[in-house]
Order: sequence, then structure tokens, then C-alpha cells
Amino acid sequence: MSQTESTRNLREVAETIFNAGIKAVDPYACVNRHLKIADGHLQVGKIHYSLEEINKLYLIGIGKASAVMAQRAEELLGSHIHDGLVISKYRHGVPLSRCRILEAGHPIPDANGVNATKDLLELVSNAGPEDLILCMISGGGSALTPAPAKGISLENKQETTRLLLDCGATIHEINTIRKHLSQIKGGQLCRSANGARMISLILSDVIGDDLDIIGSGITAPDTGSFNDCKEILSRYGLWKKIPKPVYNRISAGVAGQIQETPKPGAPEFVNVDNQIIGSISDALSAAEKEAKRQGFTPLILSSMIQGEASEVAKILCAIAKEIRLSGRPIPSPACLLSGGETTVTIKGKGKGGRNTELALAAGIELSGASQTLLLSAGTDGTDGPTNAAGAFVDGSTASRAVAFGLSASKYLVHNNSYPFFQALGDLLITGPTRTNVMDLQILLLDE
Amino acid sequence: MSQTESTRNLREVAETIFNAGIKAVDPYACVNRHLKIADGHLQVGKIHYSLEEINKLYLIGIGKASAVMAQRAEELLGSHIHDGLVISKYRHGVPLSRCRILEAGHPIPDANGVNATKDLLELVSNAGPEDLILCMISGGGSALTPAPAKGISLENKQETTRLLLDCGATIHEINTIRKHLSQIKGGQLCRSANGARMISLILSDVIGDDLDIIGSGITAPDTGSFNDCKEILSRYGLWKKIPKPVYNRISAGVAGQIQETPKPGAPEFVNVDNQIIGSISDALSAAEKEAKRQGFTPLILSSMIQGEASEVAKILCAIAKEIRLSGRPIPSPACLLSGGETTVTIKGKGKGGRNTELALAAGIELSGASQTLLLSAGTDGTDGPTNAAGAFVDGSTASRAVAFGLSASKYLVHNNSYPFFQALGDLLITGPTRTNVMDLQILLLDE
Repeated sequence: MSQTESTRNLREVAETIFNAGIKAVDPYACVNRHLKIADGHLQVGKIHYSLEEINKLYLIGIGKASAVMAQRAEELLGSHIHDGLVISKYRHGVPLSRCRILEAGHPIPDANGVNATKDLLELVSNAGPEDLILCMISGGGSALTPAPAKGISLENKQETTRLLLDCGATIHEINTIRKHLSQIKGGQLCRSANGARMISLILSDVIGDDLDIIGSGITAPDTGSFNDCKEILSRYGLWKKIPKPVYNRISAGVAGQIQETPKPGAPEFVNVDNQIIGSISDALSAAEKEAKRQGFTPLILSSMIQGEASEVAKILCAIAKEIRLSGRPIPSPACLLSGGETTVTIKGKGKGGRNTELALAAGIELSGASQTLLLSAGTDGTDGPTNAAGAFVDGSTASRAVAFGLSASKYLVHNNSYPFFQALGDLLITGPTRTNVMDLQILLLDE
Repeated sequence: MSQTESTRNLREVAETIFNAGIKAVDPYACVNRHLKIADGHLQVGKIHYSLEEINKLYLIGIGKASAVMAQRAEELLGSHIHDGLVISKYRHGVPLSRCRILEAGHPIPDANGVNATKDLLELVSNAGPEDLILCMISGGGSALTPAPAKGISLENKQETTRLLLDCGATIHEINTIRKHLSQIKGGQLCRSANGARMISLILSDVIGDDLDIIGSGITAPDTGSFNDCKEILSRYGLWKKIPKPVYNRISAGVAGQIQETPKPGAPEFVNVDNQIIGSISDALSAAEKEAKRQGFTPLILSSMIQGEASEVAKILCAIAKEIRLSGRPIPSPACLLSGGETTVTIKGKGKGGRNTELALAAGIELSGASQTLLLSAGTDGTDGPTNAAGAFVDGSTASRAVAFGLSASKYLVHNNSYPFFQALGDLLITGPTRTNVMDLQILLLDE
């Protein structure tokens, strides 16, 4: 593969900036920054405790990064920990000495998840007002903690979710209903904890860092109601189509016969604090700093990028072209940064993730551009059903592809971005990064 | 309709900023800025002539704004004009005293266009090296000047275009072929002018202001070839399907039996100068200035925004949310500006244009946001098949719609944005503005 010296440099710069972003949201490092213990005091973010005030200290965790988070917490808190339990994804556990570590199914919940969640609810039910529960939450926590409410089966919940997805219900609507079919979601973990003090340290993998969405908000107030559930299901014509036990439960809830999820301001949350300790915003800030260090003028567009991957590419490239044309919105050498989670509307039968799809669309837009390179990659090191984190593109991508007998536009139409970049040697392969704060786009324009 | 005082203010601010953008690209004003006559000298942009050097001065024009452009040129040049001819769209003519004004069909070319173009070619063929032809070009010039090459009928050209459109050929590919079936497009007007000096003043209505695309580049070098035409038609499997006269002409061109369109550096262009005198970039710069005057921090994202209107909306709103959250990329009071031309993939049977569609999608994204308003509107004062230029949205749009019994998401799914904003009284109706430099988006965030 022939590349100019300068293109090779931009690729290295982009990867360095990406790695700086990843490093800032490493779960171990995030916990380390937010948790201090010294002189008989425990400091969690802005909250201080004298260790003497704490009767028993519990350490719990849910999510793909929770084991690594708990690992650092264990190292810091040592023998202060009375008991603990962490639920992570298969092959995501790390050895813990003071907490049980249980692995479960993700993204499809399984029986191990159901059993582990029972154990978790039982553990917190041992706590009381004199105790402190430290809770490590990261993405994936929702699927890892299936706890169907009384009378509801895991299959009932799955069937209801499927019906809603097929109707085009929003993730917010689906979550509202899921929380009302669960014993743990929507702040209900706090209800089990008998008024124990609770601090959640949260690594966010959702747009806008909404506390009630990350890990289904097991320690956050819920704003939805049983009435909302009925309204949503009716709106999509599903009220009479959902499984009977779900219908019965929501009907009973609407009739006031079942307790609601705890709402904002509810007594369950008096001693509860939720702290975001790592998010795409942090990754972007670190990337911004590194870009500056590398001599580029950085501009963070947004940490909340959503939408069709190929359309996002068009706009990023339109801004890149403007920078080249007029030095607006920033002069070159420029580094445009964005983060979030795009989607891909599948039309073809190809292989790829949202990042390689975005990169491929950008490759078409940038065709012929000099000294311009884009990297789009998942901060968890995986992009859809592939072993890559994402891909690099520059002005030469489309023409180099032609030399390989590949048409960028054809591969894009077939959503076949992974083989395209694989053939070109332009994939970014990092392996698992231990963290997940969605995706990063780094667009570099050199002079 | 109930609106808060401050929302009403943001709407007024947005409209003032929009009007400042429009004013900067008024065709009359643009010609006025670029054309000066004093002390026996004619100045066109950076080019100076002593009037004594010019034997005969011709004034020609093509495009929807060409009559207004020629009007100002006539006022300035007066009796210096020897002869002139302007081709504009029906009902777009203005009285001219020294040029003939002919009106023709747009966007569908018609016989009046064919006849007018014959007259135009004849007029320039009267000129010679001692003469100067001033040419006013604006959007729409291409459809207004059908001049099928020898042996080709207007129907042959239309059929070829239709076949290419149906195959998903790009506008660039279609233009390459059109130019090779024309007597005037692709710089061929210059060939008819016997080496006369020629200056084109161009009001751009295309992304990136490509000289060879605006008005089909009648005075700009062509980079395509007959070989490219054959290659494009073959790629889409159309080589044997195009009308016989088109097949014959391109075959003869490939065989070198027909003269190519003039290429960059060709002798036809030695005395030719093309000057962009107004574009979306100018509108954005003026909008930026006005936003600053109104106390907002402006940021021009790009003058080259393309893509699906509703997806563009999502990204603009993601940036707006970031501004609100973190003061990045600019602090509020902020004014995010962008321009270009989006597209709408029609799925429903509703009524609307790309600007109201973009606004409607933004209304969903911005729902609940305070002190945030977006205006998306066409600089020509029309948005698709409607009488509106565009629409305003803010954080209250979606909920106000509910009070009218309207669902923003339903109206968006049906591409029915015009009735939505009509019911809410949130359309921007300006009437024709006399200019067209595509669309403007103005997103305001107040404190």
C-alpha cells in the first residue's frame, strides 16, 4: 500500500488523540480519580465520610466495566469492605478479593443474570441506614440484571420489548415499560436497601449521560408511571397484544394496586448520590487537549451526535471542506472532534459497524482532499459484529480502493464497510479497551 | 398561540439575521459591488479596462436572477452597451432598455428556451477580439438554455437525462453527458465568441460554487470527455439503451470525429474570466456579522451542508445541546450558522420542502429546550412546492403542536411539514427574494 509520508503522520496523530481519549475514561483510572481514602476519611467525588460514621461498607457493581471499577475500589478500600457483589459480562470479570464476581449474559439476558440479580437484591437488603453502599455502574448493566417483577417471566419481558421495537417505539418508551416490569430498574435497588446511604459511580455509555437510562437507572429516580406504560402501549396498538401477565401487572399498577417506581424526591433517594465519573465528554476533552499538544486547533462539535452514520459523515466532511475553503469555523491545522452513537439503517447484507460505515461514507466525501484524515472508532474497541474499533479514511481512500478493484459507493450501498477497510489495511484494531463511552470521531486537516 | 416574550424575541432576531444574509446576496447589490465605471474606466472585480480599449460592449445573461443583474449593469454601463440579450424564467423578467429580455421554461426546458439560446449564440458570434462580453449567470441558467447539438433533439436529451436519473447517476455524471449533447454548455459559449474578451459575473446556487456546474458552465472549462460519457453510460448499463442520435454522437466523439468541449487551458478561455459575485458563503458572512451585532457569538459550521434534511437537523440540535451543556463549541448566547442544500427522501404523501422538513425534525430534537430557536429557510423565499421560505422551531413547538392535536413525529414520517407549521403559525413567508444561494440555517441559543 502506498501512502504519502504526511498521510501516515496524520494517521498516527489521530490514533494518539484517540488513545488519549480512551485513557481518560479508563474505568480503573476514573474510579481512582473519584475515590480517595486517607486519615480515616473516605472521599467520593465531592462527598466526604468519616470512616467511623460508616457501620458496614458494601461494594456492588453492574455492567461490562464494573469488575475493573470494583477492582480499583477494592484496592483503595481494602478491609473496610464488609461484603460485595459484582455482575459483569462473560469474560469481563477480573479477580476480586472482597467481592463475589458473577458473570452473566449480554446483550441477551440469561438465567445466570436472573440468579445474580436475586443475589444482589438480597445483599443490599442486608444493609441499613448506618451502612454505605458503593455502587459501580457501567454500560450493559441493564441486560446483566434481569429481575422480572412478581408474576412476570423473562420471556414476557422479552416479548413485550420485541413488540415495542417492531412498532418503532423509542428507547425511552421501551425503558419506561421495562422499569415497570422489573424489581430493580428505575431506582428500585434503593428501595431494597432499607435507607442505606448509597453512592453510585457511573461510567456513562448513553447520549446526554441520563442517569435513569445508564444501567436502567437502578439507583436513579424514575419519571415514568404505570399510566405512561398503558398510554405508550395503547399508542402503538399493543395494549391488547402484550402477554397477559404484563397486561395484568400494568392494569393493577394503573388501578393503584401495585407500588410505583420511586419518583424524583422520593424518600428512597434521600441518602443516594449518583456521580458520572466518565463519559464521552471526558474522552473528548482529553482528545482536545492532545490535539492541541500535537499542534492542531481543536473544535469539539458535540458529545451527543446521533443519527444515520453516513449522514453524519456528510456533515463532518462539509465542515472539513469549509475549513479548507475559508478557515471557518476554525483554521487549519484543525482537529474536529465529535462523539456519540450513530445508527446504520441496514439495506445490504454486508459486514460492518457504525464506525466503519461512517468512515466509508466520509471516504467518498473526502475523495481527493489533501492532508485530511478521519478516524471514527468505538471507545470500547469494538464496532458492531467485527474485531475492529473503527477505520481511518483520507483523500486517497477512494482511489486506493479502485486500485484494489473496490468501489467505495458500492460497498457503502451494501453496508459492507468492514471488508472494504480490511482490504485497504485501514481498520483500527485495538482489542478490548475495558471501557465504553460510545464512539469518537477525529477529523484532522493539516496544512 | 401563546409564546413567551423571549421566544418571540429569538424569532425576530433569527428573521433579522436571515434578512441580513439575503441582503448580502441580492443580485442587484452584488452586481453593484463588482461593477464600477468612472473616468473612462470599467472595473469588474479585480479586472480593469479603459473604455477606449473596448470596441463593442455586449451584455448577456442567463438564469433566474439574470434580469435583475442585467438591470443594474445597464444602469451603470448605459450607452456603452452595444447590444445585449438576457434569458430568464417566465415572470422573472424586468424591463431592460438596452438588452432584449426573453423568457423561457424552467425547470422543464421548452421551445422558447431553444429559440432564445439560438439568438444568444448568434449574438455572441457577432463579437470579436476587440469586444467585451459581460455575462450575468445565475441558477436556473441550465434549463433556460437548451441548445441540443446537431442531430440531437430536446426529447433525446430529456430521455437520456431521465434514464440516468432512474439509475441513480450523480448530478456530476449527468452534467458530463449533458455538456456533450449541447452547443452552449461546458464552456462552448466562449467558442462561439470569436476570441472576444468575456467576463462572467456569477451568482452561485450550488454547493462549493463549482464554475462548471452553475448554469452548466457556459463560460467555464469542461473537465469531462466523450470517453467519460461512454464510460458513465456503460457503468449504468445504458450504453445500448440511450436514444440512437445520442449513441451516434458520443460514438463519433469517442472516435475523434466531433470536437470536444473546451478543456482547462484551452485557447477559448485565454480572455475569459469567471467571477463569483454572490454565494451562500456571502450570505453566511453577513448573517454572522448581524448575529454578532445582536449580541450572539456566531459560529459558521459550513456553507456546504448536504444530506437528508432530518439528519442534518439531528446534528445541528446535537451541537445546540452541547452548547447548552458545556459551552462548547461556543458559549451562549450563541448563533450557529450553516448553509447548503439538503434533500428529503420522500416516504409519505405530505406537503413540504426541505427547510420545513429540517425544522420539523429539529422541533422533535429540541422539544423542551428553553431559549433555543432554529430557522431554516430558502434564500430564494421558496421551499419546495410551497409558498413558504421555511419555518421556525423552538423548545415549545412539539408541545404547542399537541395542543393543536398534531404529532410532530407523525407529520415528519409523512413528510407533511408544511401543514404542521401552517397550523402553528410558524412558517416564514417572505415571497420571492429575487436571489437564490440555496438555504440558510440559523440556530439561536439565548441565556
